[in-house]
Amino acid sequence: MTAFGFTLLATDGMGRRGRLETAHGSIETPAFMPVGTAATVKAMMPESVAATGAEILLGNTYHLMLRPGAERVGALGGLHRFMGWDKPILTDSGGFQVMSLAKLRKMDEDGVTFRSHVDGSAHRLTPERSMEIQHLLDADVTMAFDECTPFPATHEVAAASMRLSMRWAARSKAAFVPREGYGLFGIVQGSVYPDLRAESAARLAEIGFDGYAVGGLAVGEGQQAMFDTLDFTTPLLPQTKPRYLMGVGKPMDIVGAVLRGVDMFDCVMPTRSGRTAQAFTHRGTLNLRNARHADDPRPMDEHCDCPACTRFSRAYLHHLIRCEEIQGAMLLTWHNLRFYQMLMARLRAAIETGTLAHTAQAIETELSRGDVEPI
Amino acid sequence: MTAFGFTLLATDGMGRRGRLETAHGSIETPAFMPVGTAATVKAMMPESVAATGAEILLGNTYHLMLRPGAERVGALGGLHRFMGWDKPILTDSGGFQVMSLAKLRKMDEDGVTFRSHVDGSAHRLTPERSMEIQHLLDADVTMAFDECTPFPATHEVAAASMRLSMRWAARSKAAFVPREGYGLFGIVQGSVYPDLRAESAARLAEIGFDGYAVGGLAVGEGQQAMFDTLDFTTPLLPQTKPRYLMGVGKPMDIVGAVLRGVDMFDCVMPTRSGRTAQAFTHRGTLNLRNARHADDPRPMDEHCDCPACTRFSRAYLHHLIRCEEIQGAMLLTWHNLRFYQMLMARLRAAIETGTLAHTAQAIETELSRGDVEPI
Repeated sequence: MTAFGFTLLATDGMGRRGRLETAHGSIETPAFMPVGTAATVKAMMPESVAATGAEILLGNTYHLMLRPGAERVGALGGLHRFMGWDKPILTDSGGFQVMSLAKLRKMDEDGVTFRSHVDGSAHRLTPERSMEIQHLLDADVTMAFDECTPFPATHEVAAASMRLSMRWAARSKAAFVPREGYGLFGIVQGSVYPDLRAESAARLAEIGFDGYAVGGLAVGEGQQAMFDTLDFTTPLLPQTKPRYLMGVGKPMDIVGAVLRGVDMFDCVMPTRSGRTAQAFTHRGTLNLRNARHADDPRPMDEHCDCPACTRFSRAYLHHLIRCEEIQGAMLLTWHNLRFYQMLMARLRAAIETGTLAHTAQAIETELSRGDVEPI
Repeated sequence: MTAFGFTLLATDGMGRRGRLETAHGSIETPAFMPVGTAATVKAMMPESVAATGAEILLGNTYHLMLRPGAERVGALGGLHRFMGWDKPILTDSGGFQVMSLAKLRKMDEDGVTFRSHVDGSAHRLTPERSMEIQHLLDADVTMAFDECTPFPATHEVAAASMRLSMRWAARSKAAFVPREGYGLFGIVQGSVYPDLRAESAARLAEIGFDGYAVGGLAVGEGQQAMFDTLDFTTPLLPQTKPRYLMGVGKPMDIVGAVLRGVDMFDCVMPTRSGRTAQAFTHRGTLNLRNARHADDPRPMDEHCDCPACTRFSRAYLHHLIRCEEIQGAMLLTWHNLRFYQMLMARLRAAIETGTLAHTAQAIETELSRGDVEPI
């Protein structure tokens, strides 16, 4: 069994090239984690997810505790076995989805009681229960239970929310069962306020975690506020531990965050877009529902090596989407996940060769060329 | 380029083991053709369809003429290239779907005018246009344009309908452009009336086709009436040509039809069932939506080598279905198509070894064990 740990292999400005080792394998960083909400990356077989280059998936504690239930997944041998994915898995703590999806939430110092958005059944999450669930799921990376501070929030509200999350972080650390190859990440909160982010980062470092996430972003604050927050937050985080920006994001959000020293990302964007006819390409996004693709024999993205691009025309993909065929969602999701992984590979190579700033500029120029021009 | 042709390799009673050769490859018979309605086998990648053992697909002229349009598919290089399937394709003539799906149908001696069930647009199909469309699609096997006689039908109605189809069969033959490796099948009609089936078979043989389909069955007449009709129809068909029972069927329908000398089948049952939580197994059908599967670590079917059965539990498949996850449809469709192909392989082997009757009995016993018993 490998020890859980992060190795910083190279840096370029604030950008970091690293390797995270876990019980189920290692992850080259900067890394993008596809989201496997309900124990499946939607419209993908697990080997296809691996074929895109993904080395780690994200699972959602909130969704999995409701369906099929953490004890059930545990009895069936854990999430890896359940969903047929033998590489690393990171699970979130459930806090974010409780705030965004659950009904009739009641929060107190101890935790949060809520009703399922699926069937109205009553549930409770506390730091201790979140740790227990993530243990039952057998997550390689467990996230501390926190409250996702709403945006916008006054300094007072953000401070109270952050301090509650810090008390929950300490309880998460106490409840987490250390195991060889498994790690626990803390989550920095504090909204867009430098003093609160600093207080949060200091408190988490004091508690001591295997990695540090930046939470409470990608909640509507906009790209510039997100970058500004990263600018004053990542320097506060321990150099020797991995950094994870939760729920981010669009390709240029990721590029900007890598430039600011972030190592890990997750987002539903590539998968959700894949089910709504949006494709990320090296010339920007394409809406395959658009009638102008109906007779187009060209691949979606000539620079892509995924099945959608190497074996099918835009005309075919447009046809599948128009007919609401499942294969359309399958192919576009595959493509988008592959696009994201190629983006990460390019950023990793750029850091290794000390060309991150130049590469980031080149990517921005490429993506802004727009989808109306011929390839 | 291979010449289009059928070789009878072995017989066992009325059962036939054969090989059909076409421009895009050969098909071992008895064969089951998965249905790729709108240029996709729903929820499957083409290489996955091939991995189930399928050697030929069925495409629907009606659906493809509406979306994306036959001229468009032709301009894009034909249906094989469009949908990424390089093995043989059989297309139906459009007649059946015009009757079952289209709106405001008006039939005359020359053909049928109708409105699309998708957008209400006006279209016309004649024997000549059906041949043209199937040529544009580049179908290896083209079906003659016919009227699917409704069931039940009086002898008078069935006779008139059958004779119209025979006049259309002659026009189909005249309009079909002979090409090396491509074949045209006629369709025997006549409902459940022996004299009409005999008249139809004789007329088709007189016109001369590369294969003969039995049409107008699997339309609500029931299994016994279907078998009775086959009993008096297949002996009327040329021994040296392939025989295709259109739209059939459940596993035991296929077994019974193979016993009665049928070589080719198509049906939406494995794919449609795969999208509605029904799995065909060696112990009969399973409804994976049923809560009793929620904690079951066993494979759906321990005799199956498909990804759904070798890599996932019933509990996981139940979970995917409960959450309406696309991967549930993907896995069950794959399994069902694999089940059908294993059934066909078993029937082919039985004919080769002269054990068809025994095998048919064994399959019936297995399938009737029911899904409530433990494997």
